[in-house]
Amino acid sequence: MINYPNGLTYHPNNDKNNSLFQGKSPKKFSYQNRGMTLETMINASIDYYRHTNRAIIHKKPTPIQIVHVDYPKRSAATITEAYFKQSSTTDYNGIYRGFYLDFEAKETTQTTRFPLSNFHSHQIKHMRQCHDQHGIIFVLVYFSTLRNIYLLEASHLFKYWDDQVITGKKSIPLSYFKKHGIPIHISYSPQIPFLDAVDQLIQSV
Amino acid sequence: MINYPNGLTYHPNNDKNNSLFQGKSPKKFSYQNRGMTLETMINASIDYYRHTNRAIIHKKPTPIQIVHVDYPKRSAATITEAYFKQSSTTDYNGIYRGFYLDFEAKETTQTTRFPLSNFHSHQIKHMRQCHDQHGIIFVLVYFSTLRNIYLLEASHLFKYWDDQVITGKKSIPLSYFKKHGIPIHISYSPQIPFLDAVDQLIQSV
Repeated sequence: MINYPNGLTYHPNNDKNNSLFQGKSPKKFSYQNRGMTLETMINASIDYYRHTNRAIIHKKPTPIQIVHVDYPKRSAATITEAYFKQSSTTDYNGIYRGFYLDFEAKETTQTTRFPLSNFHSHQIKHMRQCHDQHGIIFVLVYFSTLRNIYLLEASHLFKYWDDQVITGKKSIPLSYFKKHGIPIHISYSPQIPFLDAVDQLIQSV
Repeated sequence: MINYPNGLTYHPNNDKNNSLFQGKSPKKFSYQNRGMTLETMINASIDYYRHTNRAIIHKKPTPIQIVHVDYPKRSAATITEAYFKQSSTTDYNGIYRGFYLDFEAKETTQTTRFPLSNFHSHQIKHMRQCHDQHGIIFVLVYFSTLRNIYLLEASHLFKYWDDQVITGKKSIPLSYFKKHGIPIHISYSPQIPFLDAVDQLIQSV
């Protein structure tokens, strides 16, 4: 595996993954690409942290409902029918300084607020359960238009999530992130140095 | 979701997963079934622990290399070509009493020893990295013929793994599990009460 100096992995053009985009409309392709930006940066960052032994964090594989598998002789089993499933957990978890970390990464093009519709109730439930077990639980929110990233500790998210049925507020204002979140500046090696923000979180507890 | 009193999930006969076994030879079916026994029991046990808020542990989804996806209009995206990938981590991780837990479950029909070939080097590397970060790392080994289960703390596994190039020993003797492992008795609610063994492990540190 070859890495760029910024920690991103170099993928040669014959990467099998590219066939994912074959046959997609340009619109779909561009949407996928935009959605992957934060994910790509975070994946490169956790790879960097893992290679430098600072933290062991992995992205969980996408859960897939397998319906049919072919077992051809003399070659690998081929999945011929399967569907994407909704995950019952967050995308990322791992260990850092002996602490259990669990987080979700979300991106919005909004410039004044972060819509709660980015989460589904399973994810919130999972984060709450891990929070009750004294894990370090948070969300990384990327305001992509502003190029701003904040780490927001999960209890803030729970408050807004629970209150939305009472207040009718379906989003968290940017001003709330400015006041209660920890800003993360996009950098090199790693691109998203979120563990520095986690260090602040640990100190503040 | 309906659960049996022993914590196992009831799956109605029209479960989509059943189609997985269509077209398999009886030998393959029986092998798969045998292999799933420990996994089924552990999955039911972590569900039980999660529902009772004792620990939040999830099995990671099987990583799958997606090669082709169809996007039919008016229906869900269908994966039409995909392959199973080797995982770079263990199958299970989570949080318990504030500790990061990470473990792998393995089954053997052997009655005197546990072959190290049950692991691949990526799994050992991952367990070692998590161990260095002060996680609670272990393996649950099921000697299915004997109906014996042991929890073995990972440092014992690392010792045998590293020594095999020197000693030529490709397995861990059952007697070693008897001396250094913690026995787990198959039970009800949960079937595999491995957290009691983890409590012992935490106390002994």
